[in-house]
Amino acid sequence: MELFYAKEAHGSVISLDQEESGHCIKVLRHRVGDEVQVIDGLGTMLRCRIADANPRGAQLEVLERVPGFGVPEYHLTLACCPTKNNDRFEWLVEKATEMGVDRIVPLIGERSERKVYKSDRARRIALSAAKQSLKALIPEITEPITVKEFLQQPLNGTGLIATCFGERIGVSEAIDGDEITILIGPEGDFSPEEAAMAIAKGYKPIHLGPSRLRTETAALAAVSAVYLKFIGKAYVSED
Amino acid sequence: MELFYAKEAHGSVISLDQEESGHCIKVLRHRVGDEVQVIDGLGTMLRCRIADANPRGAQLEVLERVPGFGVPEYHLTLACCPTKNNDRFEWLVEKATEMGVDRIVPLIGERSERKVYKSDRARRIALSAAKQSLKALIPEITEPITVKEFLQQPLNGTGLIATCFGERIGVSEAIDGDEITILIGPEGDFSPEEAAMAIAKGYKPIHLGPSRLRTETAALAAVSAVYLKFIGKAYVSED
Repeated sequence: MELFYAKEAHGSVISLDQEESGHCIKVLRHRVGDEVQVIDGLGTMLRCRIADANPRGAQLEVLERVPGFGVPEYHLTLACCPTKNNDRFEWLVEKATEMGVDRIVPLIGERSERKVYKSDRARRIALSAAKQSLKALIPEITEPITVKEFLQQPLNGTGLIATCFGERIGVSEAIDGDEITILIGPEGDFSPEEAAMAIAKGYKPIHLGPSRLRTETAALAAVSAVYLKFIGKAYVSED
Repeated sequence: MELFYAKEAHGSVISLDQEESGHCIKVLRHRVGDEVQVIDGLGTMLRCRIADANPRGAQLEVLERVPGFGVPEYHLTLACCPTKNNDRFEWLVEKATEMGVDRIVPLIGERSERKVYKSDRARRIALSAAKQSLKALIPEITEPITVKEFLQQPLNGTGLIATCFGERIGVSEAIDGDEITILIGPEGDFSPEEAAMAIAKGYKPIHLGPSRLRTETAALAAVSAVYLKFIGKAYVSED
């Protein structure tokens, strides 16, 4: 199954942009009348029929809209300090998108070695990972923000902060409800001040086990904990 | 904390090989009398004092042996078909080692596009990931073996096979006991015959949730499920 992406997928006829049209018409050689699947990036998959096979701007007739296509049962925000090595963070973006995440916030901590982050590449990775893992929801990759700025924002649902000091509970036990925000610090961890601010804000301190995990591995372990908790649930009823 | 690796770490004096000696003496500039930590790769960490700072073969006096250093409470064999893209499999080796795995078996399935795999690079990655994540146990990376050959071997403990067809239970519920073997197929999944053989052998069919995960992501989700199940346990008593 191949998914295409259309940004403004409103109305009964939608168009693919030049890149998606080229891939659909030139590369995959789809013709007028072929049925194709399109995601709007917001959670809806559209079954469409090609009305105009223009390789620069294909026109598609919408046959059916499938809301919540591949959208997880939870809402997860992963706020994580980008790693020194950019590949490691981009890998995390791909893997978190495959498992299911709503929003990835690149955090700049007081101890972050990386103080600048460009979100555009990560957005392209999230798009292709969403298509590849059959999800109509493309995670939002926000612009980078400092930990303290992020903590000014209201916390909805359960907030978790992974730190290496103080009393902490295991991540799986800490996950509560279906709206979750997870904070993952830089290689040097959050500063005690940042951690204290988060805890005062209502974030629960968690641990990710005895292993010393790299930043991106810790972040993915936390995303896995959420993903696995809900697949457990999901299938009790289905099987 | 920096860990060095010594293959034959017996007796009261051990030596580092040329590569480890160069790193310890030339790069990190350790001197006679300095205390350093060494892993034997089999689960024991040795606190040592440098007796001879030879940059080609440093001699270390063993002060203390710490068995089970960073060794997880479970025994996990991950038998996984290497991905077409070698980087993806090597990334999996690093991440699985960070979380904790005893043995990684590169499997060749009937539907594997990659029929040949060289394990040496993966072994170097496992060694550095074990050091980085403070584990004295370096996972064994076996030579590649076909799925059917692997299934000739006795299954100890719980065996799980991730497939895309048939009745399956969620991976977390399926994990039982502390000795686990997980089979992950190639991009094209196991053949029905391979899956039937595994199930006849006692492997439980599992699913890894609704997302279509890449091979290496599926494998890491399964490793995470084991890791997270045991960190949960571990910390109930500690916290």
